[in-house]
Amino acid sequence: MAITPKTIIPKRVLMGPGPSDVHPRVLAATGQPTIGHLDPVFQSLMDDVKDLLKYAFQTQNALTYPVSAPGSSGMETCFANLVEPGDKVIVASNGVFGGRMIENIKRMGGTVIEVNFEWGTAVDLNAIDDAFKTNPDAKILAFVHAETSTGVQSNAAGLCALATQYGALTIMDTVTGLAGIPVLIDEWGVDAVYSGTQKCLACPPGLSPVSFSARAADVVKSRKSPVTSWFLDLSLVMNYWDGAGGRTYHHTAPVNAIYGLHEALLMLQEEGLEASWARHETMHNKLVTGLEGLGLTLPVKPEDRLPQLNLVSTPDGVDDASFRAKLLNDFDLEIGAGLGKFAGKAWRIGLMGQSACDANVDHCLKAFKACL
Amino acid sequence: MAITPKTIIPKRVLMGPGPSDVHPRVLAATGQPTIGHLDPVFQSLMDDVKDLLKYAFQTQNALTYPVSAPGSSGMETCFANLVEPGDKVIVASNGVFGGRMIENIKRMGGTVIEVNFEWGTAVDLNAIDDAFKTNPDAKILAFVHAETSTGVQSNAAGLCALATQYGALTIMDTVTGLAGIPVLIDEWGVDAVYSGTQKCLACPPGLSPVSFSARAADVVKSRKSPVTSWFLDLSLVMNYWDGAGGRTYHHTAPVNAIYGLHEALLMLQEEGLEASWARHETMHNKLVTGLEGLGLTLPVKPEDRLPQLNLVSTPDGVDDASFRAKLLNDFDLEIGAGLGKFAGKAWRIGLMGQSACDANVDHCLKAFKACL
Repeated sequence: MAITPKTIIPKRVLMGPGPSDVHPRVLAATGQPTIGHLDPVFQSLMDDVKDLLKYAFQTQNALTYPVSAPGSSGMETCFANLVEPGDKVIVASNGVFGGRMIENIKRMGGTVIEVNFEWGTAVDLNAIDDAFKTNPDAKILAFVHAETSTGVQSNAAGLCALATQYGALTIMDTVTGLAGIPVLIDEWGVDAVYSGTQKCLACPPGLSPVSFSARAADVVKSRKSPVTSWFLDLSLVMNYWDGAGGRTYHHTAPVNAIYGLHEALLMLQEEGLEASWARHETMHNKLVTGLEGLGLTLPVKPEDRLPQLNLVSTPDGVDDASFRAKLLNDFDLEIGAGLGKFAGKAWRIGLMGQSACDANVDHCLKAFKACL
Repeated sequence: MAITPKTIIPKRVLMGPGPSDVHPRVLAATGQPTIGHLDPVFQSLMDDVKDLLKYAFQTQNALTYPVSAPGSSGMETCFANLVEPGDKVIVASNGVFGGRMIENIKRMGGTVIEVNFEWGTAVDLNAIDDAFKTNPDAKILAFVHAETSTGVQSNAAGLCALATQYGALTIMDTVTGLAGIPVLIDEWGVDAVYSGTQKCLACPPGLSPVSFSARAADVVKSRKSPVTSWFLDLSLVMNYWDGAGGRTYHHTAPVNAIYGLHEALLMLQEEGLEASWARHETMHNKLVTGLEGLGLTLPVKPEDRLPQLNLVSTPDGVDDASFRAKLLNDFDLEIGAGLGKFAGKAWRIGLMGQSACDANVDHCLKAFKACL
């Protein structure tokens, strides 16, 4: 007899900026019996998760693991470990998450060199080059590969090459990028990267995969001051996630969430990274064709668009909030609101992970047609 | 047709220091479809979780919610928000988690007045009174109500009364205490408290319920310096968890983990707090009688023992690690190792949440009898 919980959650079609639809296999994995975080079975699963994450990130970095909290904690892990008081960090900011990076660095006592770009546009490499020219002592370049607030992707390879040229480390936010578009950590030379599980990895939210290069690890090891966060201190966390010398208890890992991530990463491996990227691209093209067919427009330039997150202008005379409420109530369809200068003026339609499928695109277009 | 994940996790009997056994109802809740963190259905669930946590903590504190990460992050939330550089904090330390508090405070730039007690003994109120006499300017008294490393409980009511007498705030760790023994936040006058979900609440690990008094909230609001952690900054997090002015996105909540916590809190409400406390006490007595019948001894004085975590001396001639491995391999039974001065010399047998039941006690005693 199946046991049911008292509170039943409705099934939605998740096409917002994340979380995205979670496959029943991943949900079933998440609901398996909890076992101990030091159980040999769980430790073996941790090893698998590390290997599968290395594949997803296309890296050989030994320091690759999921932080035990949502994406924001992955961001904080990167900045808390790599920034010391007085360190100069160039931030390429073109949306909400560039702004959050700045907030993080200030709280760590770092000096921020802010290079701002209009929301909805990509980071311009020339402006970053100029920032390095006037700040050759910058220790780090931080940028958002895939801006969740606008659906814009920036040239990560080019930004990393620039940082290398000036001898700076790179910190990259690819919360929305991982598994949806190419993320090539080793080829690009990214030193620290963080992502989330609830976007193109198609897991429940709650974990933040991160990866650090050997160079970044050396910088952490040679810090002058301790990391202000005990919970996120890499030198401690790695004694638990690194199996080399036997695992040491640091904090209790979110066991069931890691079951889910493991299963989702297995599914990614089964499909193949390239196939996953191609599927996101195909669904994006289908969605854009359909939306344009309905007379809608996308404010981001085609070459800057993230296939997995589509910014769509709200037509004149349509009330943003009541339109989204109608989609949710009548079609169980969640899409995202615009942020910043796009608040009330654009929607964000996600095609992330399992949500990047024909059925969802068809459902979305049908619902839009009915509600516009 | 039921969908099964590729990797099947074995069913264990969890009688270590946590995680504890999770009820199938809670696992089923955790595996329900993911929905958006801003979905009205989820927001309503968040309100319920806050109310149910207030019941569990026996508090009316408005600032009561689960931090989106394991217990260590709840600890860090308390210290990061309440301690500013130069603040003097008296720490009553009698085990691993008192030591972790000290580590937290130092990283925040606080001044620690360390009052140490032998591991396996309770905090002595006279020593804390002496510490206040020599440090009347101490801003905070921090203590561990239920020491997970030794199975010792301290007099929380008495410690809070002392702090009040000297005009200090209190920070209390009751990660292992909540739902297993009385935790009376308002009656005792605790200002900041943190717990975990994987102990007597019988959920998977991954969330840390916290509660702050109005006085503590005022201290946070009047800080001179920003909280170093953006992720754990109460003033920001509460814009999401506090429904009063409409919820604002801060970070993406771990949606499925909160389904599980909600279901477990409903089960606690159905049983009743007093009944839950009584069940832990009854199972403790049964376990102790059984262990003593096998010739085993418990080094903690009876009046200081936590019913939900039992420190048991390893008999001479028994190898700690191979004994625990045998329990796990032959009986699917997990118990905990000793820590600090008890490493290799004692075991920790948990009776937390769903694990505090006749079947588990019987299974444990049978396994011990067979393996000793």
